[in-house]
Amino acid sequence: MEKKIITISREFGSGGRTMGRKIAEKLGIPFYDKELVDQIAVESGFAPKFVEEHGEHSPTGSFFSYAFAPQGVPGIMNGLSTADFLWNIQCNVILQLADQGPCVIVGRNADYILKDRPDALHAFVFADISYRAERIVRRYGESEKSPEQRLNEKDKRRRVNYQHYTGRSWGQSQNYDISLDTGVLGIDQCVDILCNIVENSKK
Amino acid sequence: MEKKIITISREFGSGGRTMGRKIAEKLGIPFYDKELVDQIAVESGFAPKFVEEHGEHSPTGSFFSYAFAPQGVPGIMNGLSTADFLWNIQCNVILQLADQGPCVIVGRNADYILKDRPDALHAFVFADISYRAERIVRRYGESEKSPEQRLNEKDKRRRVNYQHYTGRSWGQSQNYDISLDTGVLGIDQCVDILCNIVENSKK
Repeated sequence: MEKKIITISREFGSGGRTMGRKIAEKLGIPFYDKELVDQIAVESGFAPKFVEEHGEHSPTGSFFSYAFAPQGVPGIMNGLSTADFLWNIQCNVILQLADQGPCVIVGRNADYILKDRPDALHAFVFADISYRAERIVRRYGESEKSPEQRLNEKDKRRRVNYQHYTGRSWGQSQNYDISLDTGVLGIDQCVDILCNIVENSKK
Repeated sequence: MEKKIITISREFGSGGRTMGRKIAEKLGIPFYDKELVDQIAVESGFAPKFVEEHGEHSPTGSFFSYAFAPQGVPGIMNGLSTADFLWNIQCNVILQLADQGPCVIVGRNADYILKDRPDALHAFVFADISYRAERIVRRYGESEKSPEQRLNEKDKRRRVNYQHYTGRSWGQSQNYDISLDTGVLGIDQCVDILCNIVENSKK
């Protein structure tokens, strides 16, 4: 079955977004990450920044209350929590993007949302904490928290969100077609592996 | 870092052994599976058949009692259960094999035993249950149990053994450098991916 859609789930700092962009460039297909966030934001009426921060994060907690309904659309949320409302929109946007044609989608639990599409290739990328710590400081700069603390917090929120909405365990091999350690294999080699799989699937 | 040792952990029926043999042939290096079992058996004094059946299986239960000490070596077991005694020998054999030079090792928790060797590449292979069911019936024939039951029982025993001796979760991506769905990607493509990684690591 030809693989047309590539989803990349990733530990924070492992290079999943960089990989996604490179794969999309090599294959000449659209890449959805911040663009996807913006689209979700437009449809939901939330601020793009708010969606970006909470689209993959914990579904519960005081921060996720009904008080965050965007101005002008209280009726649309229809009794759903902010997180559940975002999740529904996210599912619809991702399903629509996949229907539009070949693309690369990073994060947003797209592996689960598109699990029933045989033309989707699902990858999970990760790396050990020292590799990721060095990488996030280089890319995003220092902050008052240690890089390890930032990584652990972000991964924990992604894990809890994934578990909550999919009932599956984040990072479990069997949820994806391929899982890759970017620290060991290198981002460029991981890009080549995924592009080759897509090219071979056309034969 | 050049990758010289390839370990393959696998769900039953996913083709891990076939992959291991093909990779060893392509790279021209030794392949250890039944051969490894025999070597463990010789060192332990257990019958090869016994080691093969229990080397990766549950560490507890009535079957694993001290009564299974091989004839002539009761003192060697030194108070260990049969399973723990086998585990210790298995670790020593695998560490020695890796020290001898490049090779492919299938199963036997070799990913964990060789986790501190940077020249080892650790792969996990799996596939959905229908692919594996069809494969084990073709390779091993029918039995009174359904293929699905045979798969679930064998995987469960491997999972419990892995968890017990390594403290890690079987099939969790982060325990391996790469995880591959042989049902989706095909055994030959998975062989090529791993051989390419080994070849690229020499550059």
